[in-house]
Amino acid sequence: MSLSRQRITLVTLGVADMARARRFYEGWGWVPHGGSQPGVTFYQMNGAVLALFGLGDLAADQGRPSAALGTGAVALAQNCGDDAETDAVFQAAVDAGATALKHPEKVFWGGYSGYFADPDGHVWEIATNPFWPLSRDGSLTLPPA
Amino acid sequence: MSLSRQRITLVTLGVADMARARRFYEGWGWVPHGGSQPGVTFYQMNGAVLALFGLGDLAADQGRPSAALGTGAVALAQNCGDDAETDAVFQAAVDAGATALKHPEKVFWGGYSGYFADPDGHVWEIATNPFWPLSRDGSLTLPPA
Repeated sequence: MSLSRQRITLVTLGVADMARARRFYEGWGWVPHGGSQPGVTFYQMNGAVLALFGLGDLAADQGRPSAALGTGAVALAQNCGDDAETDAVFQAAVDAGATALKHPEKVFWGGYSGYFADPDGHVWEIATNPFWPLSRDGSLTLPPA
Repeated sequence: MSLSRQRITLVTLGVADMARARRFYEGWGWVPHGGSQPGVTFYQMNGAVLALFGLGDLAADQGRPSAALGTGAVALAQNCGDDAETDAVFQAAVDAGATALKHPEKVFWGGYSGYFADPDGHVWEIATNPFWPLSRDGSLTLPPA
């Protein structure tokens, strides 16, 4: 079998405290998959999966159990249908325990964007991009150049 | 408009050297979107986008220009159709300049998995998971629990 190289199947976030991380994601509105196990929680997305996994377990799985894993240099963006939805999604995350890094505002490239950090420091951008229309299911196919 | 909460539209990787990062991803087989701009490179995936963006620009965009952003606690997994493909995809990444963290091997949960770091330290897992069949386009819908 040979699949396209341009795929991410699973995004795993290392978390220091699974209960705290789940409270955040589920407080923000995510619903875990029934196949989640002790030590790992899965959330189905559009054709891919978000996972929460213990930070030490993740380092060990990477073959470097004593590594101190860092956050911040990866941003996960969730684009919304309009600015009001961006505001509401951002506020829902803050209400669930996120730390606002930058509240949504008009940005130089013509969109509307804010950033927050989840309880482990993982960074999310919540944004409206008028140049990138979303499909009905929320997926994104870039317009022709 | 109100879309499912369980979505990632865009995964942005902060990079210290865009030319080096592009050499790696394109050497690994990714094809940039024609709408990429100086300072940002986009790669279309299945309904979502991978972006490379300057590390300093990303910190500034997050509203904390002087932050030192870290890597490692997010793992991006690309699941393959079989172990031979996992080996080939892993080796192609190493050949393109990735640092092997753990070569693919049989793992306790019944799959076959390896990890590498890209030139900026972003971590990818290349894996076969016999319990999670992929769709023909490489997307993943978790089986019922």
